[in-house]
Amino acid sequence: MRLSRFPIATTKETPADAEIVSHRLMLRAGLIRKLGAGLYTWMPLGLRTLRKIESIVREEMNRAGAVELLMPSIQPAELWQESGRWDVMGDEMLRIKDRHKNDFCYGPTHEEVITAIVRADVRSYRQLPINYYQIQTKFRDERRPRFGVMRAREFLMKDAYSFSTTAEDLSQQYELMREAYIRIFTRVGADFRPVQADSGNIGGAKSEEFHILALAGEDLLAVSTEGSYAANVEAAETKPTGTRAAAAATLEKVSTPGQKTCEQVSKFMKVPLTAKVKLMVAKAADGGLIGIAVRGDHEINPIKAAKHPKVASPFEMARIEDVQKAFGCEVGYLGPVNAPIPVIADFAAAEVADFVCGANEVDHHLKGVNWGRDCAEPETADLRMIVEGDPSPDGVGTIRLLRGIEGGHIFQLGQKYSKAMSLTVQGENGESITPEMGCYGIGVSRMAAAVIEQSHDANGIIWPDAIAPFRVIVTPIGTDKSPTAKQTAETLYEQLIAAGVDALLDDRGLRPGPMFADADLIGIPHRIVIGDKGLAAGQFEYKHRRADKAEMIPATLEAVLEKLG
Amino acid sequence: MRLSRFPIATTKETPADAEIVSHRLMLRAGLIRKLGAGLYTWMPLGLRTLRKIESIVREEMNRAGAVELLMPSIQPAELWQESGRWDVMGDEMLRIKDRHKNDFCYGPTHEEVITAIVRADVRSYRQLPINYYQIQTKFRDERRPRFGVMRAREFLMKDAYSFSTTAEDLSQQYELMREAYIRIFTRVGADFRPVQADSGNIGGAKSEEFHILALAGEDLLAVSTEGSYAANVEAAETKPTGTRAAAAATLEKVSTPGQKTCEQVSKFMKVPLTAKVKLMVAKAADGGLIGIAVRGDHEINPIKAAKHPKVASPFEMARIEDVQKAFGCEVGYLGPVNAPIPVIADFAAAEVADFVCGANEVDHHLKGVNWGRDCAEPETADLRMIVEGDPSPDGVGTIRLLRGIEGGHIFQLGQKYSKAMSLTVQGENGESITPEMGCYGIGVSRMAAAVIEQSHDANGIIWPDAIAPFRVIVTPIGTDKSPTAKQTAETLYEQLIAAGVDALLDDRGLRPGPMFADADLIGIPHRIVIGDKGLAAGQFEYKHRRADKAEMIPATLEAVLEKLG
Repeated sequence: MRLSRFPIATTKETPADAEIVSHRLMLRAGLIRKLGAGLYTWMPLGLRTLRKIESIVREEMNRAGAVELLMPSIQPAELWQESGRWDVMGDEMLRIKDRHKNDFCYGPTHEEVITAIVRADVRSYRQLPINYYQIQTKFRDERRPRFGVMRAREFLMKDAYSFSTTAEDLSQQYELMREAYIRIFTRVGADFRPVQADSGNIGGAKSEEFHILALAGEDLLAVSTEGSYAANVEAAETKPTGTRAAAAATLEKVSTPGQKTCEQVSKFMKVPLTAKVKLMVAKAADGGLIGIAVRGDHEINPIKAAKHPKVASPFEMARIEDVQKAFGCEVGYLGPVNAPIPVIADFAAAEVADFVCGANEVDHHLKGVNWGRDCAEPETADLRMIVEGDPSPDGVGTIRLLRGIEGGHIFQLGQKYSKAMSLTVQGENGESITPEMGCYGIGVSRMAAAVIEQSHDANGIIWPDAIAPFRVIVTPIGTDKSPTAKQTAETLYEQLIAAGVDALLDDRGLRPGPMFADADLIGIPHRIVIGDKGLAAGQFEYKHRRADKAEMIPATLEAVLEKLG
Repeated sequence: MRLSRFPIATTKETPADAEIVSHRLMLRAGLIRKLGAGLYTWMPLGLRTLRKIESIVREEMNRAGAVELLMPSIQPAELWQESGRWDVMGDEMLRIKDRHKNDFCYGPTHEEVITAIVRADVRSYRQLPINYYQIQTKFRDERRPRFGVMRAREFLMKDAYSFSTTAEDLSQQYELMREAYIRIFTRVGADFRPVQADSGNIGGAKSEEFHILALAGEDLLAVSTEGSYAANVEAAETKPTGTRAAAAATLEKVSTPGQKTCEQVSKFMKVPLTAKVKLMVAKAADGGLIGIAVRGDHEINPIKAAKHPKVASPFEMARIEDVQKAFGCEVGYLGPVNAPIPVIADFAAAEVADFVCGANEVDHHLKGVNWGRDCAEPETADLRMIVEGDPSPDGVGTIRLLRGIEGGHIFQLGQKYSKAMSLTVQGENGESITPEMGCYGIGVSRMAAAVIEQSHDANGIIWPDAIAPFRVIVTPIGTDKSPTAKQTAETLYEQLIAAGVDALLDDRGLRPGPMFADADLIGIPHRIVIGDKGLAAGQFEYKHRRADKAEMIPATLEAVLEKLG
């Protein structure tokens, strides 16, 4: 492509709401333009990258045996009522009434639609397994759209849905997708990590997320130092050590005027945070209140807590008024001794002996407290957030925390949708089988932004070759003084195109500075500069976008192709 | 692709609401599945054709110098309020409120969005001309979605928008698109015709539609017998001959009890329909009523009539009560003599002498009526539908009527949107230029159905090679008895794939009948049958989908490739 015919619109300023580097660079490089909150146009330059990611996804999905189709973006409410999700999905689902006042939504995901399609078209076990996918525009009405296309409302997604006759086959389909995802993220050029994940409101048993590691990531990942374990902290397990020191201290009430937080109490009483047990109060599954004890240095994990049968789901902290009424005491002084509500304890909290906790009396705490002696042995569970330094749940190494951007998510749904929507197929002996489903998503448009978060410098984007809008830019300089550089550049450009290389020719005739600045900002991986001086020595100047300095290479197509690799 | 791994779902029955052959065949061949009214899933087989059409469109748009981008499907109401179309677009535009109760629409078209983008990014005349296009899912909430993907609510469209500094350059951009469209429709394999068209609510001056000729077409086209003129009847002009016979008869009132329609009166009074003038009453631009006189054998063209300054736009017939009140007479007996409202006449009606018309008195007509003698010479205009046998408006040949399916539409919009949305760029001498816009659409998904309307037989679809889901199907027969046919078919299939041919292998091991029936129904253009008998003679059986009979060819890849052309 010639820049004289291909509109680019690089800018120096970015709006204040562009908080992260990928958002700023995508705007500055003119890859995207904002139309409204969470609504972006992919400009020609950005669309080239988007289409390349899309092609990689398509190729790997096809290679894994999945079959592409295209479902409507607008879905009738009836299907969501069948699955029971119409009332569960919150405001994030964009609900629509058509001219006849019938209810629809702009599909945030397509489990219901694909289940209805398979229900109508698939009759026999012989037609399974099948894995349908599509690459399609989705809409999720985010409460707070931000970070450009990273968390947009309208976005491009690849969603796939597999149907199997057995749980074993579902595992196999899932594994095929897991491998395809690893190939996709590798080919895109991302530094990524598959991690165990929570299934959220999609439902189902096993699930993993594919995270692109970046400081701007909204997710925190727990990764073992030995690389053998990785999970989203939302889902990362913690395990009991199975040991607790014997009670040594005697129970004592201490006056702690105004000392409400664990940090204040720890400092005031000169005990480490790890010797403190804090009691938080949440809404219980039965509509009442439930106390959750965690160690002073730990936090409740609301996702894991909500899975406890006694805790309300979704997790919700109790209202302060309700807590104060139940305890007859200000929050900040609560503890498990003589608590007026049921108490469950996180594994780690239950393993502390001689601990400090609130006395359920204003301005007072207890010390030397012991479970089973001063209060009942609590029911224990995995209720807290994993922290750095925790032993890895798989027993190998310790945990460190990384930030990641969720680029993909794969789920074993099981029979959640096939049961709810009465999907059955006939088995080998005429029996009725309810298929096991899996679903597999990739945020295609998000991936472009996530790669930029990983790959940029002060001058702009540094695209991996595979998804660069153009792989190489040919820049003639000094063209106002002599026609040779321009002609040579034209020839090289034509040769590169003929060789199937995605080349860009900067034929704008600007000064070198602005041309180089644009090429750096838009992140073209390879740059060939052609000037009279180099040509006199039979040379082109070559520079990789990551290199500090340019180098001279022979002025031949072969030398250029060798550099492109 | 192997049919054992590629799901097809052919069926024998189609629902009663599938009224046209393409809708029935697309359902029977399993190309599409209905999700709701006007909402269709493109199944894997259908999607392959859709993507091939999409690729042809993209290649030709790129070749014509247009640049692809991708705008959001969801658009803020503000832009439509700026252009003045928010209140003009009827129920066909799907209006949406987001979680914050802000107004949006699912874009039925993107003039407003692209104008806003160019307004933000383009500063100088040097950046023009530019032609942006996208291939994107659109939604139009049709009152009566029908004919499958032919008139669906959600559909795939290519829309392009050009911006020029002068009207001359707009003409050039328009011409480039016109040529690209001719190439696209030709490559897709359609029998099509570009015709002059009305611009509808998109606005602008010149426009042409690209129609795929088919009996099921919803549009009527007026085409000259010499091929020199073609227009949608909505837009087809008629011209005055400039002659009228001198008045010969005397005015006479005739009793015509119960004879209300032109046909009744013509028969009763024994005069040809061409000697009758009927007076229709429409809403006038000033809010009152206006009489429109057309010849007895002609009909009002509401699109052309609405362009007359005295007629309300959009065109609307007057309410019967209002007409009867104004005339003091039942409709069916109206005429221009002593009409109590202003009357305008179509050219042809104004050229009739000694005509018959209603007497504005129940059960009575007048005969021997003459304009300028018995009533005022009327203001004349082009107000009627063109009919078969009319002289061609370009003076060459006469008109015949064809049916067409609108596959594309190109418009010279002029400054309608650039003016309304204050888009200006700086000219060569610093002056402010309001760009001239063009817009160019193709119904990508509709095109698939339209081609089927043209190209099918009793057994199913007959795809043109360029958009067939697969070009050739290799079908081994008798595989239960001998492995040779199966192995040979596998080899040929692999060779075809390696040669870049989009081949399908029917490895389902069914009886020949069902395999041939499926191949015919889904419309694969070329079929190779491989059986032991043929192989013994060193031959494959080849049949083109259009051929009556199969023929034997040498059992070699070369012979097959030669047949594929």
